[in-house]
Amino acid sequence: MSILVVGSVAFDSIETPFGKRERILGGSATYSSLAASYFTEVKVVAVVGGDFGREEEAVFIEREIDISGVERIPDGKTFSYSGVYGYDLNDRQTRATELNVFAHFQPRLDGAARRTPYLFLGNIDPVLQLDVKRQMANPRLVALDTMNYWIEGARQALQRVLREIDILIINDAEARELAEEPNLVKAAQRIRQMGPKTLIIKRGEYGAIMFDRDTIFAIPGLPLENVFDPTGAGDAFAGGFLGYLAATHNFSSAALRQAVIYGSVMASFTVEEFGCDQLRRLSYEDINARFREFKRLVHFDDIEFIRSDHPAASVTRTG
Amino acid sequence: MSILVVGSVAFDSIETPFGKRERILGGSATYSSLAASYFTEVKVVAVVGGDFGREEEAVFIEREIDISGVERIPDGKTFSYSGVYGYDLNDRQTRATELNVFAHFQPRLDGAARRTPYLFLGNIDPVLQLDVKRQMANPRLVALDTMNYWIEGARQALQRVLREIDILIINDAEARELAEEPNLVKAAQRIRQMGPKTLIIKRGEYGAIMFDRDTIFAIPGLPLENVFDPTGAGDAFAGGFLGYLAATHNFSSAALRQAVIYGSVMASFTVEEFGCDQLRRLSYEDINARFREFKRLVHFDDIEFIRSDHPAASVTRTG
Repeated sequence: MSILVVGSVAFDSIETPFGKRERILGGSATYSSLAASYFTEVKVVAVVGGDFGREEEAVFIEREIDISGVERIPDGKTFSYSGVYGYDLNDRQTRATELNVFAHFQPRLDGAARRTPYLFLGNIDPVLQLDVKRQMANPRLVALDTMNYWIEGARQALQRVLREIDILIINDAEARELAEEPNLVKAAQRIRQMGPKTLIIKRGEYGAIMFDRDTIFAIPGLPLENVFDPTGAGDAFAGGFLGYLAATHNFSSAALRQAVIYGSVMASFTVEEFGCDQLRRLSYEDINARFREFKRLVHFDDIEFIRSDHPAASVTRTG
Repeated sequence: MSILVVGSVAFDSIETPFGKRERILGGSATYSSLAASYFTEVKVVAVVGGDFGREEEAVFIEREIDISGVERIPDGKTFSYSGVYGYDLNDRQTRATELNVFAHFQPRLDGAARRTPYLFLGNIDPVLQLDVKRQMANPRLVALDTMNYWIEGARQALQRVLREIDILIINDAEARELAEEPNLVKAAQRIRQMGPKTLIIKRGEYGAIMFDRDTIFAIPGLPLENVFDPTGAGDAFAGGFLGYLAATHNFSSAALRQAVIYGSVMASFTVEEFGCDQLRRLSYEDINARFREFKRLVHFDDIEFIRSDHPAASVTRTG
């Protein structure tokens, strides 16, 4: 089953304590489509300028991503972003945002795109997200990302699109702000009443937590010795997560939990290099090995502790 | 096997967005000994003033904690602390610290205390921590907590005591500061070269991570609907962790992982009420039920994802 990804394609200039890169290919549609491409067929809908050349195109084509839905405006410039991270890689300061051709982005889906069964709405104006959702014929599953900018500035539009989606993928602070509730469990309840049956909260180096039906699933981040650039990790998470669901076409709780792990796997690769370099050349061995690393990371044996009377202590192994 | 806990007994005044309490019983020795008391025999070495009365004593005696090593200075006042938390419960502002009798604390262990096989050195001056360690006959396992105040102001004394302990239990920021290294995996390597074979990093609502031998174990925090006061959670973690090891007397990797879960269980109860109220009246049913909640929280099935050629995708269940 294939995925339609709608979002930004950008040139990013990124500085972290570990280095600096100018005008590297980025954007939510880039990271999420690359991550999803390891699991299923992917089509991208986005807009680029005349500065988006053969080299950038090749990044998608190598991964067999369909970019026929990427609109080109030859005399415009591609969206560009510049940001800097401190030692706390969860905290990014924006230096400059030039929307360029992205300022007038009006996604128009062709017939094939409208019939795609899976849809990922990357972090763009919620008015556009709703418009895209309504162009779709009858998608099986729709996931959406957003950010504080839209929560604060376009709450009503955001709430309209939330009513029509299945899965919301945001971070801790965004969840608390959207729900206007500091406790995450209560915030999740409120957000799930706004529409999405499943809420996934991305926590950067602390991993991810999923609220689905009556259960909660949480996974820590994989501790990595080399973290260069967290840009795109959240989009790679979404791409891996939704890609896995689209490939297996199974929405059971067990499958959703595995999808969170595959999302975490793709995010973990993303941060190990600047930009999307690492996401371009993974093998299934790499991906599955890292899945198993997550399994080992959180494994512990069941036990029952019974201390009947002072000072005797007994332990019973239950599994 | 029994544990000796050395640390502070205090009167805490705590304000959080969820309420306010004046002069409630707290301190590292209080929280850690209460948590450990569910697993094994506990002796406390601390100092209190004339304001430590029958009511405070009863908290320990109810849990059969031996307080014969708690020194009383009738004309002195017990250590008192006042702090306030914002909505980010990982961040506490200190309003006032009155060391009182604690300023001249000189722990002196009697013969029985010296022969205790397990030792928890709560967060006090590393000079005193080393002095206590050296009074001990031949402890099987020594765990230590510290904080930024000592890392910044008493680094040499801290490094001396680190050489003589087995397990260091600190938070993220403290680990990075102690190692002078922002990457947690590299910081853990440096800290383990300073002495402690095992490093446990407490991450508040994000759980805990343990670096031991060549493996890493991580567990998210249990998402809780009611969090009132995080004070003491780290000490309760240490008490549950070390209490479980003392009870089972097993230091295998598997046992250490289970101990981290029992530590997390005790921490999770601590934050659900102000002060140590909840830690005073748990049942083994409560404790084991919450252990199983942690198991469910992180459970996912093994799988292998293989996508041999476009667009076929296949999934193999491996466990």
